[in-house]
Amino acid sequence: MSTTVTLDQIRTILPHIDLLPLIEQGFVEYSSGQAVVPPVGELLFEDPPGDVHIKYGFIKGGDYYVIKVASGFYRNPSIGLASSQGLMLLFSQKTGVLVAILLDEGFLTDIRTAAAGAVAARHLAPKSVDRIGIIGAGTQARVQLEHLCAVTACRNVMVWTPKSDEFDPYRASFVGSNLQIEFADTPSEVASRCHLIVTTTPSTQPLLRAADVQPGTHITAVGSDTAEKIELEPELVARADVVVVDSLPQSESRGEVFRAVSDGAISRDDVSELGSVIARNAVGRTANNQITVCDLTGVAVQDLQIARAVYEAVAVETNRRPR
Amino acid sequence: MSTTVTLDQIRTILPHIDLLPLIEQGFVEYSSGQAVVPPVGELLFEDPPGDVHIKYGFIKGGDYYVIKVASGFYRNPSIGLASSQGLMLLFSQKTGVLVAILLDEGFLTDIRTAAAGAVAARHLAPKSVDRIGIIGAGTQARVQLEHLCAVTACRNVMVWTPKSDEFDPYRASFVGSNLQIEFADTPSEVASRCHLIVTTTPSTQPLLRAADVQPGTHITAVGSDTAEKIELEPELVARADVVVVDSLPQSESRGEVFRAVSDGAISRDDVSELGSVIARNAVGRTANNQITVCDLTGVAVQDLQIARAVYEAVAVETNRRPR
Repeated sequence: MSTTVTLDQIRTILPHIDLLPLIEQGFVEYSSGQAVVPPVGELLFEDPPGDVHIKYGFIKGGDYYVIKVASGFYRNPSIGLASSQGLMLLFSQKTGVLVAILLDEGFLTDIRTAAAGAVAARHLAPKSVDRIGIIGAGTQARVQLEHLCAVTACRNVMVWTPKSDEFDPYRASFVGSNLQIEFADTPSEVASRCHLIVTTTPSTQPLLRAADVQPGTHITAVGSDTAEKIELEPELVARADVVVVDSLPQSESRGEVFRAVSDGAISRDDVSELGSVIARNAVGRTANNQITVCDLTGVAVQDLQIARAVYEAVAVETNRRPR
Repeated sequence: MSTTVTLDQIRTILPHIDLLPLIEQGFVEYSSGQAVVPPVGELLFEDPPGDVHIKYGFIKGGDYYVIKVASGFYRNPSIGLASSQGLMLLFSQKTGVLVAILLDEGFLTDIRTAAAGAVAARHLAPKSVDRIGIIGAGTQARVQLEHLCAVTACRNVMVWTPKSDEFDPYRASFVGSNLQIEFADTPSEVASRCHLIVTTTPSTQPLLRAADVQPGTHITAVGSDTAEKIELEPELVARADVVVVDSLPQSESRGEVFRAVSDGAISRDDVSELGSVIARNAVGRTANNQITVCDLTGVAVQDLQIARAVYEAVAVETNRRPR
């Protein structure tokens, strides 16, 4: 009989899980060819508009395979529902038996994405960061900042969002922390004052420009996960000394690197994978004054790692042996 | 909050559902372009061997979208588990909210496949059938025969299986029915004595040959759902007057028609879709002495239709309104 884990249980258990090493391990396995991750499945709806992504895969020789469903229906808030919905399913890789249903409603996708942002910063950010820049002020902008606190001592933050009604909720979510949060008027103000920047919007127009970014900056771009979305001007990707993606195959059809390559700004040969950088099989930042860019479109190994960790923690908690 | 439906609940409620019209409707919607069914997702495991298929899709303007996971791990019986595992998930097409988890362990896939076989026979079999032929004697061979009883008055059955230890269990599963079941020595004996034949094996060598089949025969081939599996000699498909598939796009990469076209035995122009035949937008059987072949690889609209019907029946049963 499978274990069903509710969103409340997930929220309770997650702070007790040391996620970053698990996500790092997932990327390393992925980039070393130990993971099987087929192309992302997709369903698109028009009325009301919505998109569903199905990510699935496994690490060879592991215990489980994962199927993750995550959707965004952007009119949901008008009827009192969250835009993000979905769940994760964990199956035995040896028998196909359903092991766990994680009713996360998109929450674990938010968290594993933020954890990947922290991993990218750990491996690519310059040694000392005096200000963190965040583009966007939604859920992902919040969890990215939360997770960055684990990998940098910097607590000065500059945030840009086009929606001024997001200022107060964003600030409120960090009450009681020691973060100093100010809001910028433009994305270029963020670029000119911050050396560790995360972009988290669904923009379809570039927000950060090559001319605005200072030497010695790391940028993690998590907003674009389709062919249409873009946050970084292709010239900015071209100006970077190091360009890294979570998944080279996915970067052929989605994200910043897809756009920069399509634009002719960079060659695919200029790009390496985060898991290879972590494992030191690819060159990451080699000097403090370099510009580095990490483009994350989200890989099923992240879903596998977080789903497995949550399930196993719940199983221990309830004194049941994981299967 | 989503509804979880157990396998026991599914088994209890299913006999109260009139499935064939729903499956017919699903095929008609699919063939008229009203359904969105992306390519099948697949995971393959080597040790122990197993395969997972993820089918998903929706009917435009409907209430739900479906994701179906069905796996086969063929060594499971040696450790007391069924080979087939999996589940179906029903989500709102308007909000992405998870509506129902059907813990069917592959059972609904078996049943919707059998229902499709009955639909094919209803629309393509000759008027009078004096003997039903079944190739294979496993689960699918059993449920196909059960469902054929709804569309033909014939109760004489000839079964061929290479495994003689399947004779008794197969016969036993029809005790109390008015079916007369005999076992054939060879597939060609079945072909020479039956005018309505269903093939249900995972064979990778043709079992039925063009020379063996009588005029006035309908054959439904459900066993082959990959590029490697084959039950009908390509010349048999070429000899057929009418060749129908459940899904033209899927027949480009899997099933009997894929093999017959690859072999040069037939052209893709010779093939039409079951939903078009049902809707009379394509020509089916026009004479009793024709040979007709229907090649089923399984389409997500079948999963959608059966999942929806089960969920709505459970919701009524428990006095809850479906969402």
